[in-house]
Amino acid sequence: MSRPKLKLIPLGGLGEIGKNMMLLEYADDILVIDCGLMFPEEDMLGIDLVIPDLSYVVEKRDKIRGIVVTHGHEDHIGALPYLLPQINKVPIYSTKLTQGLIQVKLKERRIKEVADLKILEFGKEATLGKFKIELFPVCHSIPDAAGVIVTTPEGIVVHSGDFKVDYTPVNGNGTDLSRLAQLGAQGVLLLLSDSTYAELPGYTPSEQIVGASLENVIANAPGRVVVTTFSSLISRVQQVIDAAVKHERRVFIVGRSMSETVRMALDMGYLNAPEGILGRIDELKGMPNNRIVMVTTGSQGEPTSALVRMANRDHRHVHIQRGDTIVLSATPVPGNESLVNRTVDSLFKQGAQVMYDKLGQVHVHGHGSQEELKLLLNLVKPRFFVPIHGEYRHLSLHARLGEEIGIPAANIFVLEDGDVLELTAQQARINGKVGSGNVYVDGLSVGDSEGVVLRTRRMLSRDGIVVVIIAVNRQSGKLVGRPDIVTRGFVDTRESRDMMDESRELLAKTLDHGSGRIAEWGFINTKVKDTLEKFYYKKTKRRPMILPFMVKV
Amino acid sequence: MSRPKLKLIPLGGLGEIGKNMMLLEYADDILVIDCGLMFPEEDMLGIDLVIPDLSYVVEKRDKIRGIVVTHGHEDHIGALPYLLPQINKVPIYSTKLTQGLIQVKLKERRIKEVADLKILEFGKEATLGKFKIELFPVCHSIPDAAGVIVTTPEGIVVHSGDFKVDYTPVNGNGTDLSRLAQLGAQGVLLLLSDSTYAELPGYTPSEQIVGASLENVIANAPGRVVVTTFSSLISRVQQVIDAAVKHERRVFIVGRSMSETVRMALDMGYLNAPEGILGRIDELKGMPNNRIVMVTTGSQGEPTSALVRMANRDHRHVHIQRGDTIVLSATPVPGNESLVNRTVDSLFKQGAQVMYDKLGQVHVHGHGSQEELKLLLNLVKPRFFVPIHGEYRHLSLHARLGEEIGIPAANIFVLEDGDVLELTAQQARINGKVGSGNVYVDGLSVGDSEGVVLRTRRMLSRDGIVVVIIAVNRQSGKLVGRPDIVTRGFVDTRESRDMMDESRELLAKTLDHGSGRIAEWGFINTKVKDTLEKFYYKKTKRRPMILPFMVKV
Repeated sequence: MSRPKLKLIPLGGLGEIGKNMMLLEYADDILVIDCGLMFPEEDMLGIDLVIPDLSYVVEKRDKIRGIVVTHGHEDHIGALPYLLPQINKVPIYSTKLTQGLIQVKLKERRIKEVADLKILEFGKEATLGKFKIELFPVCHSIPDAAGVIVTTPEGIVVHSGDFKVDYTPVNGNGTDLSRLAQLGAQGVLLLLSDSTYAELPGYTPSEQIVGASLENVIANAPGRVVVTTFSSLISRVQQVIDAAVKHERRVFIVGRSMSETVRMALDMGYLNAPEGILGRIDELKGMPNNRIVMVTTGSQGEPTSALVRMANRDHRHVHIQRGDTIVLSATPVPGNESLVNRTVDSLFKQGAQVMYDKLGQVHVHGHGSQEELKLLLNLVKPRFFVPIHGEYRHLSLHARLGEEIGIPAANIFVLEDGDVLELTAQQARINGKVGSGNVYVDGLSVGDSEGVVLRTRRMLSRDGIVVVIIAVNRQSGKLVGRPDIVTRGFVDTRESRDMMDESRELLAKTLDHGSGRIAEWGFINTKVKDTLEKFYYKKTKRRPMILPFMVKV
Repeated sequence: MSRPKLKLIPLGGLGEIGKNMMLLEYADDILVIDCGLMFPEEDMLGIDLVIPDLSYVVEKRDKIRGIVVTHGHEDHIGALPYLLPQINKVPIYSTKLTQGLIQVKLKERRIKEVADLKILEFGKEATLGKFKIELFPVCHSIPDAAGVIVTTPEGIVVHSGDFKVDYTPVNGNGTDLSRLAQLGAQGVLLLLSDSTYAELPGYTPSEQIVGASLENVIANAPGRVVVTTFSSLISRVQQVIDAAVKHERRVFIVGRSMSETVRMALDMGYLNAPEGILGRIDELKGMPNNRIVMVTTGSQGEPTSALVRMANRDHRHVHIQRGDTIVLSATPVPGNESLVNRTVDSLFKQGAQVMYDKLGQVHVHGHGSQEELKLLLNLVKPRFFVPIHGEYRHLSLHARLGEEIGIPAANIFVLEDGDVLELTAQQARINGKVGSGNVYVDGLSVGDSEGVVLRTRRMLSRDGIVVVIIAVNRQSGKLVGRPDIVTRGFVDTRESRDMMDESRELLAKTLDHGSGRIAEWGFINTKVKDTLEKFYYKKTKRRPMILPFMVKV
C-alpha cells in the first residue's frame, strides 16, 4: 500500500471574494479551516446568501476531526450554521472574540447544541487526528484575528487568514512576524496566503493614519460629527472614542448592530471607554452640537441602517442638520457603490458636510498590499505556495509575486474551488476535483435556486411575462371562447390596450385555423409562443416571457 | 411691462452623470446646449436608454432658435434623435468631428432630414435670436471638444462643456485658457462648469503619462499586445500607433465600432498613421507575435465586444495565447465593474498578462480634478456660478471650491434638473421648476416604463410569479374544478410539487367555503392572494407576485 498523501482542498474563496473554506485531508483525518458565506452578486436575483458546496465534506463527515476559524467575519464563519447540523459534533477552535461572534451567529439560527466551541490561545497547540494546529496573531480589520500553523505528517502548512502588516496597530497584536520567520527557518512545506489586495502596489497604511484624520475632523467640526463604519471594525470605534475624549465630546452609539458589538467588545475588553464618555441616545437632547460624536453603521448604504434612515429623514431620534459632519469611514464593497453614492447625495442635500474615501484618508482596508504579501512570502520561504482568498486575477497576481521573490513557478499553484492538491514533503500536483460551487440560500431553501429559477427571474426582470390562458372543452378538445391574455412587467396595460386586443384576436384566428379538434398541447404551446413573440417584438421591440396555459373545462 | 429676465433651465446632467441638456431662455428665444442620453442603472430593469424629459422644450418649440453641441459623446448628443422630430428645423452648431458623430447617430435612427447641421469654427460667432454663441477649444477624451460662450442681453455666460486642463495634449488643442482669461477680464455673468471629477484632489495627469506606459508595454511585451479602450478616445489610438511605429510593430484594428471610428478619424485628419502601419486582420497570420499590436473595444466588459469574445474563446479571428499582454486602457464606468473583473479573470485564465488601472497608469480620465476646476473659476471670475454635470455630491463639492476661490456663497447655485434660475446683470434667484426627470426608452416605446412596468419587473426579479387560474361557470358563477397554479421564477417546480399540490388543495377549500354562488371577483382576488402569500411565505420565506385570473366558461 502506498503512503497516504496530504491533500489540500479549497471549497470556497479561490476564484471569488467570500465563502472561504479550506480542507486539509490526510488518510482518515480532515481538518476544516473557516466556513464562510458570500453575499450575492447583482445578477443573483432574490438570493439571500451564498455558501460553499458542502457535499464533499458532509459525505466524509466521519473523518472530520475539527474546525479552526481564523476570525469572526461573515465570510469566515457565516456558513457554520449550515454545516454543523450536517456533521458530527467536533471541536471548533478559535480565539475568544471569534468564539463570541460564532456564538451570536449560532444563536440567531438556533443551532447552539451542535457546536463544541473551544478557545485556542495564541502559541498553544491542539491535536486533531494526525494534525496539530496552532494559531498566531495577524492584524486585520477585526480584533483577535489569527493565522493557522498546521503540522502535518508531510510538513508544516501555514494559513495566513486575512492579514495585513501594521507596525502600529490600534488594538491588539500586529501580525506575528517573528513566529513566521522562525517557521521559515525551520522549513515550511506550504503557504496559503490572502490575495484580496494583491492588485495594490506598496503597503497598506496603518490604522493610525485614519486615527489622525478622524481626530482632525472631530477637533474641527463646527457641529455634530457622525462616524459610520462596519460594526466589527472595533479599532475604528476605539479611535473615535480616543479622539472624543481628547476634544471633549461625548460618544453616542446609534443603531442595534453597532450597539450590540460595542457592548460585547467592552465586556470582553476589546474596547476601552473612560467612565461617562459613552452617552445614551436620550441624553442627546440639550447637548451642544459641538460636544457630540455619533457612531453608527450604514457605511455601505444599507437601506435599513441608521445612517440611511438619517439621510432620508426617516430616523426616529436623529435628523441631519446643516452644520453636521458625516464621516464614511469605510470603502464601498463592490456592488454597493450606487447605494453609497445615493446616501452621500442625500446627506449633502440635507446640508451636511460629508467626508468619504475619495476626499481623504478616512479608511484603510484590512488586507495586505503587494509589499506586505512579499514580506510574508519572504519570511515563510515555503517550498510550495497557494494564493487563497481572491478572484482569479488576485490569485494570478499573487502567484507572480511569489515568483518574483524566488519561488519556482512549478511550485506555485493557482487553484480554484474544488481542486485537489496532493502533497508530499517533496512534491505537489493537482490531482482531481471534488464538488464545489455556489449553493444559494433563498428564503428557507438551500441550494435549489441555482439553475432554472434564477435564470427565469433574470428573464422576467428584462421584459416581464405574458400569460395566455386557453380554455378547451374537456370532451371535444375544442377551444372555448377567445384566449385570455394577462401581462405583468411587459407594457403599460392602460396605454397598450389596443395592441393587447389585437394580439388576442390574432391568437384566436391562428388557433382556429387548425379548427375542429384542437391539436395536442405541445403544438399549441409552440404556436402560441411563436405567434406572440413575433407580434410583440414587431410592435414593441421587447421579448417578454410567454407562458401559455390550457384550462380544461 | 417689466424687462424680461435671462433664464437658465437645466433639463439633464444636474443630479446625475449623463443626459446633459441645458436651456438658456430670454423673452422669445431659447438656446439649447447639448441633448444627451444616459445609460440605465442596474435597477432600471430592461430599460435600454434614459433621455431627459423634453416636454418643456417641445411645448416651447416655436421659441427654439438653435442647438449647440459641445462634443460627440453619447451623453451630449444621444437624445437628439428623440428631440429633433418633435421640434421645428433649427440650426445645430458644433465642431467638425462632433458633426460627423451626430450624422452617424441620426443616420442610425433614420432621421436625417430634420437636422440642419452647421459647423461653427472656434472663435467665430453665430447669432441665434438674442443670443450670440462662440465655441472655444477644451481638452477632453474626444477630439474637437468645445465649451460655449453665450453673449446674452444680461451678460456673458460661459459653459465649460466637459473639460480638463492638459498642457501637453496628444492631439488637437488644449483648453483655451487665454480666451477664458480674456473673458474673465471683460466680465462674466455666469459660469457653468463640469463637476464630474470634483471629488478628486489635485490635477488630472496628462495623456502623455499614459503614452509612456503604453510605449513601455509595447516595447517590452514578449508577444502580442492587445490595447482596449473607448472607440471615441482617438488620442489613445494615436498613442498606440506612435509606439508601434517606434518599436516596429504593426497595428490591427479589431471590431466594428473601433474600425469605423478609426476610419472616420483618419479621413477627417484626427488620426495620423504612416503608410503600411495599419494591417488587415487577414494579415495577422504568419506575423511574429512580437510584431503585433491590436486595438479594440471591450474595456467595459461589454458582452458583445471583441475583447470579451476573445476572453471567452468566442472570437472568430483572435484567440488569447499564453504570452499575450492585454492592456485595459480605461476605467470601468460605475456599474460595469463586475463585467470588467470577470473579463480580466478570464484573460488571466487563458494565460495572458493583463494591465489595468489598478496595476499602473494605463488610463487618465477626461475631466478636470479639483485644482483644474479652481483654475477655471479663477480665470473666468464669474459673478454667478452653477456647477453642472454631476451627481448631487459632485455639484456640492464643486460649489465649495467656488467659495474657496472667493465667490460669495449667495452667488453659487446648486441646481437640480428642472430648476429655473432667473438672472439679470445684478441678481440671480431660483424661481420655479419645469417638468424634468428620467424618460425611459424601452424597445420602441419612449417614456411609458417609468412607473408600474419597471416596479413590476423589479418585483418579478425578486421571487418570481405565481399565476392562479380559476375557472368559473359563466351562468352559475360557481367554481369549475380546482384552481390551476403555474409558477415561474419562484421555486424549482420539480422539487416543490408536493407544496404546490398542497397550495392548490388549500385554495380549493378556501374558495369553497363561500360555496353556492361564488362571490365577486374583488373578494376572490384578495382571498386568493392572502391565502397563498401566507402559505408560501411560511413554507419558503419567499414572496412571489401572485396573479389570480378568472376564466369564465
